[in-house]
Amino acid sequence: MAIVTLLTDFGARDYYVGAVKGVLASLAPGVTLVDLGHEVDPGDVEAAAFLLAAAAPEFPPGTIHLAVVDPGVGSPRRILAAHDSRGHGLVAPDNGLLTPLLDGARLHAVESAHLFRPGPGATFHGRDRMAPVAAYLARGEPLASLGPSVEDPVRLDLPRPRRGPGSLLGRVAHIDRFGNLVTDLPVAWYEGGPFRVDLGDLSVERWITHYTELAPGEAGLLVGSLGTLELCLPGESLAVRTGARRGQDIAVILLG
Amino acid sequence: MAIVTLLTDFGARDYYVGAVKGVLASLAPGVTLVDLGHEVDPGDVEAAAFLLAAAAPEFPPGTIHLAVVDPGVGSPRRILAAHDSRGHGLVAPDNGLLTPLLDGARLHAVESAHLFRPGPGATFHGRDRMAPVAAYLARGEPLASLGPSVEDPVRLDLPRPRRGPGSLLGRVAHIDRFGNLVTDLPVAWYEGGPFRVDLGDLSVERWITHYTELAPGEAGLLVGSLGTLELCLPGESLAVRTGARRGQDIAVILLG
Amino acid sequence: MAIVTLLTDFGARDYYVGAVKGVLASLAPGVTLVDLGHEVDPGDVEAAAFLLAAAAPEFPPGTIHLAVVDPGVGSPRRILAAHDSRGHGLVAPDNGLLTPLLDGARLHAVESAHLFRPGPGATFHGRDRMAPVAAYLARGEPLASLGPSVEDPVRLDLPRPRRGPGSLLGRVAHIDRFGNLVTDLPVAWYEGGPFRVDLGDLSVERWITHYTELAPGEAGLLVGSLGTLELCLPGESLAVRTGARRGQDIAVILLG
Repeated sequence: MAIVTLLTDFGARDYYVGAVKGVLASLAPGVTLVDLGHEVDPGDVEAAAFLLAAAAPEFPPGTIHLAVVDPGVGSPRRILAAHDSRGHGLVAPDNGLLTPLLDGARLHAVESAHLFRPGPGATFHGRDRMAPVAAYLARGEPLASLGPSVEDPVRLDLPRPRRGPGSLLGRVAHIDRFGNLVTDLPVAWYEGGPFRVDLGDLSVERWITHYTELAPGEAGLLVGSLGTLELCLPGESLAVRTGARRGQDIAVILLG
Repeated sequence: MAIVTLLTDFGARDYYVGAVKGVLASLAPGVTLVDLGHEVDPGDVEAAAFLLAAAAPEFPPGTIHLAVVDPGVGSPRRILAAHDSRGHGLVAPDNGLLTPLLDGARLHAVESAHLFRPGPGATFHGRDRMAPVAAYLARGEPLASLGPSVEDPVRLDLPRPRRGPGSLLGRVAHIDRFGNLVTDLPVAWYEGGPFRVDLGDLSVERWITHYTELAPGEAGLLVGSLGTLELCLPGESLAVRTGARRGQDIAVILLG
Repeated sequence: MAIVTLLTDFGARDYYVGAVKGVLASLAPGVTLVDLGHEVDPGDVEAAAFLLAAAAPEFPPGTIHLAVVDPGVGSPRRILAAHDSRGHGLVAPDNGLLTPLLDGARLHAVESAHLFRPGPGATFHGRDRMAPVAAYLARGEPLASLGPSVEDPVRLDLPRPRRGPGSLLGRVAHIDRFGNLVTDLPVAWYEGGPFRVDLGDLSVERWITHYTELAPGEAGLLVGSLGTLELCLPGESLAVRTGARRGQDIAVILLG
C-alpha cells in the first residue's frame, strides 16, 4: 500500500489532522501516513508550496502527497489531483499550492462526488473530499476517473530572480527554523570572488562551506540545501537579528 | 496488526510521547501508530474529550485509541479500557476524557497488574500502564480479561445547549486553530431567518455556507465540520478579536 | 522492516523532517518511521542526548535511532553509527549526542561516501548522509562496513551528582512540559526522612508518591519516571514559578 504524506495548516492543537488520518486509514487500509508538517501559518499557500516542493521529491515513486492549505474551502475553487513528473500523486486545492510541482504533471479537477464523505458543512474538504481522493489514488485507482483534465491551474505569481553584470537580485524564499535566509538565487549564478549582501546594518561578505567556519556573530553566504544561496548567522537567528522577512529583496553585489 | 492512535498533553518537547510509542512498538509488533495530537494544554481533560470524540470516529473498526491526559496519575483513579459502539478500543484514565464516547460502550477497569511495566515512580502511567493495555488490545486480547466491568465512569458535567422560542443558547465548545468558535448548538436548530449573535462589540448577523462569502473584517455563522453552528471571521481569529474563550455562553437571537 | 525513530532540532515548520523521512522511505522501503520529537532547541545537544536516552530504550531490539542535532554540520566532525547494548542501531553526529547510550556500544565512523545522497551544499547531512546510513542499517546491512571502529567518541562532560552525609547534590537534568524539575539524583540515594530543597523563595519539604497528594500551590519531591528525584508543583509550572533552569544546582538537604 502506498505512502500518503500530509502537509496542512491545521496545527497541532486541533482535531483536523487526526480526522484526515482517520479517513485515510479507513479508505486505504494499510496506508502508511507520513506527516510533512501541519504548522504552515493559516492560509499561507506560498509557504506550503515551498515546503511541499522541498520535501516531496525525496519520497519514492507512487507516494501520494495530500496538501491542504485552503482558505477558499467551500467556494467553487477546484480541487486538483495530479500525477507529477516523478510518478507521485498530488491532491490539493487549486490555489497555487502545487505551483513548483506542475511542470510535466498531469492534472485533473476532482468532480467525482460519489467519493466524497458527506459533510457536515463545507469547511472541511480536507477530511470530506481531499482525503477520500488521496485514499483513492493510494489504492491505485486511475487519476483520470476523478474528473476532467486541467490545463490552467492557478499558479503563484512569484517574482523571478535576476542576474545582472554586477549583482544577483533575488528574494528571501523561506526563513528556516534556525533563522537562515533561504534565497531563490541559484547557486550556479555565484561564480566566486568578493561580494557583499547588505541586510539592515549587517553586511555579509564571507563565503563559507559550512557554519562552523564563522566566528560568533559573523554572518555568511553558502550553498543551501536546495541548491540556492543561503544567508546564515550560526548560533543565532539571522532573521531575528536583521528583521528579515520572507519575500524581502536580496541583492548579492559582486565586487570582483 | 491494529492501528493505535495517541492523544496526550505531553507536548512535542519531551520524551514522553517517544517512550509511549516505544512501549507500544515493543508489545504490539507491527502496530501502526497514529498521532492525534500531543498539544492538549496540561491537564485539560475537557479539550482532550472534545478532540478525541471529533477525530476517533473517522478511524476503521478495530482501531485502539489511547488518550492520556491524566492530572490524577498515580492516585487511585481508575484506568478504563473499553470497546465503543463503533468497534473501537479505548484506553484512558477514568476522569471524564471518554465522556462523549461512552454511549453504548462496554467499559472495564484495568486491574491486570501483570501487564504493567514496572515504574519507576507513579507519574507515567501512560508508559507504564496504559500503553501496555493498549498494546494488549491491539494484539486482539479480550477486553474483559483486564478487570471488572464499570457502570459508573466519571463523566464531564458540561451544560447542555437549550432551545427557546426566540433564541438558541449554547456555549463555545472549542476554539480552533483559525480562531473559529465551534459551538455546541446543533445545526438543525437553526431553521433559517434573520438572527444576531453578540460577541463583545461585534455583532454577527450573516449566515454563510463558506468563508469566502464574507468581506474582510466581517464575521459569519455557518455549519461547522462537526454539525454544530460555528462562528468565524475569515482571515483573522474571531477568538482573538473578541476575546472569546472556551465555555463562554453563546446566544443566537432569532429575529424572524 | 525495521523501525527508524527520528529526533531532531528541525522544528515543525520546516521541510527538513519531511525530506529526511522521504529519503528513509525511499532507501528502506517498508520502514516504519516514528517521531521521537523535533522541537529540541536549535543546537541543544545536551537536551537531545537526554531525550534520546529516555525514550530509545523502550523500543524493540533492531530499532534504528536517527538523531540529528548537528551545529557542526559540514565541518570535519565525524558521523557515528553504532549498535548499542540493547541491540539498537544509532546514527548521529559525533558531538556528544549519544553520550548516555555509549556504554557497551560498538561505534563506527561513517566513511562510506558511496551511500551519501549528493548535496547540494553541506548543511543538511541529516538528509544527505545520516538518513541514508540509517536506511542502510534498517535494511540489515552490516555496521562495520560503514567505516572504521571508533574508541574515542565525543562525550558530554556533565557534572555528576554527589552524595554527602547531610545532603544530595545534583542538578536539574531536564525541565519537562509540565514544568517539573527532573534531577539527576538517583532515587535510591534518598532513604526517607525529613528534607528540604530551596528553590528561590520556595521551600520543598514534602515527599509524595503522586501529584494529587499536594494542595494547590504546594511543591513536592517524588520518584520521577526515569528513576531520579523530581520536583513538582502540580497544576502549575514549578520552573516558571521559581525561574529554575536546566543545569541549575539542586541540593536536597537531609534533616533526619
